[in-house]
Amino acid sequence: MLKVGLLGAGRIAGVHATAISSNPRSTLVAVSDKFPEAAQKLAAQYGCEARETDAILNDPEINAVLIATSTDTHSDLIERAVAAGKAVLCEKPVDLSLERAKACLKNVNGKPVMIGFNRRFDPNFGALKAALNNGEIGKAELLSITSFDPAPPPVSYIKVSGGLFRDMMIHDFDMANFIMGEAPVSVSALGSSIVDAAIGEAGDVDTAVVTLTYADGRIAVIKNSRRAVYGYDQRVELLGSEGLLQAQNMLENTVVKSTTAGVTGAKPTYFFLERYMPAYAAEWAAFVDAVNGGTALPVTLEDGVAALAMAEAATRSVKEGRPIKLSEV
Amino acid sequence: MLKVGLLGAGRIAGVHATAISSNPRSTLVAVSDKFPEAAQKLAAQYGCEARETDAILNDPEINAVLIATSTDTHSDLIERAVAAGKAVLCEKPVDLSLERAKACLKNVNGKPVMIGFNRRFDPNFGALKAALNNGEIGKAELLSITSFDPAPPPVSYIKVSGGLFRDMMIHDFDMANFIMGEAPVSVSALGSSIVDAAIGEAGDVDTAVVTLTYADGRIAVIKNSRRAVYGYDQRVELLGSEGLLQAQNMLENTVVKSTTAGVTGAKPTYFFLERYMPAYAAEWAAFVDAVNGGTALPVTLEDGVAALAMAEAATRSVKEGRPIKLSEV
Amino acid sequence: MLKVGLLGAGRIAGVHATAISSNPRSTLVAVSDKFPEAAQKLAAQYGCEARETDAILNDPEINAVLIATSTDTHSDLIERAVAAGKAVLCEKPVDLSLERAKACLKNVNGKPVMIGFNRRFDPNFGALKAALNNGEIGKAELLSITSFDPAPPPVSYIKVSGGLFRDMMIHDFDMANFIMGEAPVSVSALGSSIVDAAIGEAGDVDTAVVTLTYADGRIAVIKNSRRAVYGYDQRVELLGSEGLLQAQNMLENTVVKSTTAGVTGAKPTYFFLERYMPAYAAEWAAFVDAVNGGTALPVTLEDGVAALAMAEAATRSVKEGRPIKLSEV
Amino acid sequence: MLKVGLLGAGRIAGVHATAISSNPRSTLVAVSDKFPEAAQKLAAQYGCEARETDAILNDPEINAVLIATSTDTHSDLIERAVAAGKAVLCEKPVDLSLERAKACLKNVNGKPVMIGFNRRFDPNFGALKAALNNGEIGKAELLSITSFDPAPPPVSYIKVSGGLFRDMMIHDFDMANFIMGEAPVSVSALGSSIVDAAIGEAGDVDTAVVTLTYADGRIAVIKNSRRAVYGYDQRVELLGSEGLLQAQNMLENTVVKSTTAGVTGAKPTYFFLERYMPAYAAEWAAFVDAVNGGTALPVTLEDGVAALAMAEAATRSVKEGRPIKLSEV
Repeated sequence: MLKVGLLGAGRIAGVHATAISSNPRSTLVAVSDKFPEAAQKLAAQYGCEARETDAILNDPEINAVLIATSTDTHSDLIERAVAAGKAVLCEKPVDLSLERAKACLKNVNGKPVMIGFNRRFDPNFGALKAALNNGEIGKAELLSITSFDPAPPPVSYIKVSGGLFRDMMIHDFDMANFIMGEAPVSVSALGSSIVDAAIGEAGDVDTAVVTLTYADGRIAVIKNSRRAVYGYDQRVELLGSEGLLQAQNMLENTVVKSTTAGVTGAKPTYFFLERYMPAYAAEWAAFVDAVNGGTALPVTLEDGVAALAMAEAATRSVKEGRPIKLSEV
Repeated sequence: MLKVGLLGAGRIAGVHATAISSNPRSTLVAVSDKFPEAAQKLAAQYGCEARETDAILNDPEINAVLIATSTDTHSDLIERAVAAGKAVLCEKPVDLSLERAKACLKNVNGKPVMIGFNRRFDPNFGALKAALNNGEIGKAELLSITSFDPAPPPVSYIKVSGGLFRDMMIHDFDMANFIMGEAPVSVSALGSSIVDAAIGEAGDVDTAVVTLTYADGRIAVIKNSRRAVYGYDQRVELLGSEGLLQAQNMLENTVVKSTTAGVTGAKPTYFFLERYMPAYAAEWAAFVDAVNGGTALPVTLEDGVAALAMAEAATRSVKEGRPIKLSEV
Repeated sequence: MLKVGLLGAGRIAGVHATAISSNPRSTLVAVSDKFPEAAQKLAAQYGCEARETDAILNDPEINAVLIATSTDTHSDLIERAVAAGKAVLCEKPVDLSLERAKACLKNVNGKPVMIGFNRRFDPNFGALKAALNNGEIGKAELLSITSFDPAPPPVSYIKVSGGLFRDMMIHDFDMANFIMGEAPVSVSALGSSIVDAAIGEAGDVDTAVVTLTYADGRIAVIKNSRRAVYGYDQRVELLGSEGLLQAQNMLENTVVKSTTAGVTGAKPTYFFLERYMPAYAAEWAAFVDAVNGGTALPVTLEDGVAALAMAEAATRSVKEGRPIKLSEV
Repeated sequence: MLKVGLLGAGRIAGVHATAISSNPRSTLVAVSDKFPEAAQKLAAQYGCEARETDAILNDPEINAVLIATSTDTHSDLIERAVAAGKAVLCEKPVDLSLERAKACLKNVNGKPVMIGFNRRFDPNFGALKAALNNGEIGKAELLSITSFDPAPPPVSYIKVSGGLFRDMMIHDFDMANFIMGEAPVSVSALGSSIVDAAIGEAGDVDTAVVTLTYADGRIAVIKNSRRAVYGYDQRVELLGSEGLLQAQNMLENTVVKSTTAGVTGAKPTYFFLERYMPAYAAEWAAFVDAVNGGTALPVTLEDGVAALAMAEAATRSVKEGRPIKLSEV
């Protein structure tokens, strides 16, 4: 039974708390947060203790730590948790600074740290990857990832987010790496603030297209928008030498209505909590199984650094108006 | 080159004129109608002659006759055309009277008469039948036919139509025979005039469900409604021992719109001319090929009589509130 | 907090135990089973006590009882639990004997007993019903329910099941009542043992079509098969005066593969546990909310008796080869 | 009645001959081809004359000319036909040389010349454009065009084709201009010969992704592959401020088969003749209506030059590894 300390008590921490509690091979021992009342509230709900972070890291009974705090604390907490001998699952991104993330990777020195790229555990993307691995469409050639949020966050959030490429598209960079099985050679990015001019004034983009090239000639395209009014649009499409795979959206329900106005079905599930709830549980189960079994983690700190490097390259590509080689960042 | 006389110059005759003209192995020689102006107008459009029916039947140059007149003339015209040595394609139904249709069948005595059950030539139903024949779902077990018109005809039409079972469901009876490969043993029918009470007052139903049982235990269900406001709903679904086949609707276009109101696609094609236009051309081609090649017609007068017998049984089943054996009609 | 005793520790009891435990307004106190080891095993997993049934019913701390035992015990346990002052949620069917079920209804005398027609809580069927209530397709006219199991149960089970109408289609009878808002006037049934002759030899059918007529002219059709090799096929389709509603299957995932062999998507979820897991949780939540809030139960013992009467009528209809009025049973 | 001369008697000319003949407002008078037998064969089939090109252009009875010859003759024939006072519909592209095409545009000097971008007349893309114009998804933001051929042409064709951007993607450049309503500011292209190395050796690419940026911040992405083994994949997707529009593929039929292997539907129609046959007829009808009515042509020579300029920019972008402004070409 894995004994777990949860760092952070915000919304996503609640999702993780459910996953930890409902997994028969893990138990939630304690939670901490910079706002002690938040920790106390979550602790009451899940029947565990609210503690200081230090008290969690210093508890020899606790085997594993899940880091769900704000991004600026990730690298430090990863290093401290690893130093305390804990297995770590940390929310993405590793850091907003690629340099700091690389230092963290070096400091961790191969100890077990998993980065929470939950989408790898979505049953739809997982089935697509399995079909590819199974040879069902031959060799991969052209990958397309569509990833639209339902609505943009407040500009105040945009300003501290690190920008669309580090905050939002980082999931898609990791998805590309997951499916293509390696990092690309170069990154070319376009961005626009067509959804909300205020996002542009804050120095960010809200609509972006990134193309990735691979050493063997494969190509990938990632499309992001901060606003798709019909819901969370999360699709992956892969053309191979012997066919096409498409992972389509999950819908709120299967009801279809035919009237004089047309044939109407339900919208995609609204946002990431609805869409990826099963993925969070599957992610946690994979972490627990790897830690308990002493096997390789399915997503690593290296993966987190790789995605961050692509975000860095994309950010630079928009600024410089040219493709950026990953070897440049 | 098959030389063709067309009897009737109404709307459906126009559809047939197009099929005859555009088929490279047939040519439209003459057309007749009880309203001579209608025949003249159609003749002008298709570059053929307007004649009296007798002048068509007596023309030794004409090899084949297509009968697209009103139902009450079908049996007589079939018999006269056959007597004149023409190959015949006649619109459904053979007759409103089962007795008269049986007499016609006897009088025709095996000469080539095809009944225009155009739906057998729809590419979708054809693909379903081919998949069944190909063993793709094992043995057929349970057939469902959904057949809804977009809007009811005027009550004046209802009164002379012979009723829903002879006028509308007769297509579905033939479809059942086509797919199941034989006639059923018994027919059980329910009907209601829930769409328009005036249809009930005229002695007919506008909504009906018929179940068919087969000697080997197979079952079929046919659903009809005179009104589906979203368009012409024409679907067939067949459960077999190793799978399910569904022939779904044709849509007006493939555009899908996702908004806050849901995900909306186009409606089914509006009515039979839009949906079955390719089927009419394929039906004609099959007739021409069989006549020219001296091979068996793909739909026969026997098929027309068989469907009419099922309509008779269904009509009686609603009246008597019990299943009717086909041997009773 | 509702304190719950669970009677039965089989597979479906496990589903309910999860629902009870994960609902923040209920807690599982004790479980019983005729095989004490089964109760002990389930108790260990969910952290509750294994007891004798009497010890559960006599415990004044326990407010509610969930009955998930074999069907032949349902009526007795309902009566005993009600007599002991518990709120009751009992799995369907109430009983195999309509007479006994009616006696139970009389004995319960209006006390809160809910019957576990879980499909009413499926989000898809719920959305269909909500759209109907919301007037989105006008007035209901023609209802179709398709309900196919993936594979037939062993003949040994068939023999004690009460037959397809009481064991399997009873869910669909309740679904018809749920959607149409009232019981039908008459029931006409066809059955066949085309899937497995041994089922016929055991006196049951494996393929059945039932038509229902309503006082106002509405019609419903229910299709059942014990075998759909592609998975659990659970669809509802309702034609109304202003449109059509269709609740389609849930699929295992959203991946679509296009190859030279065609365009292939995932199969429906395999069976009822996969398909209706969210419905069981929603059913339990509705029960808890009604009991805690003192409001009307969303499904009642009357509903259970009504569905059983329809099963009785269908059984008789197949035997007698005629429609049966519900007033006859 | 528009009297039409057809220049060219190859496969695509046959498609046009059918459209000309079946349109009630145009008639096919004569056809020419560099291989006289080809012209004679087509003339025999459609009941018109086979002539020399000069004899067509000099015939004062002929009002309009349809140019369906090889690309290298387009500019000359356009200029000669315009000089002879004919209305012109010319197959795409105008020319492989942008310079020559611009000269042709100058020489034509505003006379009626339509370029055969048939996809604008596809009912699906047309419905998408109409929905956009109708404000159904608010303002356009992000356009995606997927355009895959079923199989690559022979390398011998590739060598004289002008390359993927001028030969294949030119349709998609025009589609982008059609939907976005204006030309982009810059073009950035990636290409790879991952389908067939011999295509790369011939100096071309077989897989390409092009991004387009617009003055107001809109972005478009075009994906091309010479090989999609499942058929002709022709989709357009447009994200707007208030929704998403998707024009999906046309399928060979609507049959869906569910077995233990999954749920399988038909493939997309195989290639451009199957997919765009209705579009060719609609294109011709639009040309006839504009010429007869004296109204503006729906696609112009300017449109042909604009698409060619984008192909030129894309070709240069791949070579230079940087975005190319349209003002540079």
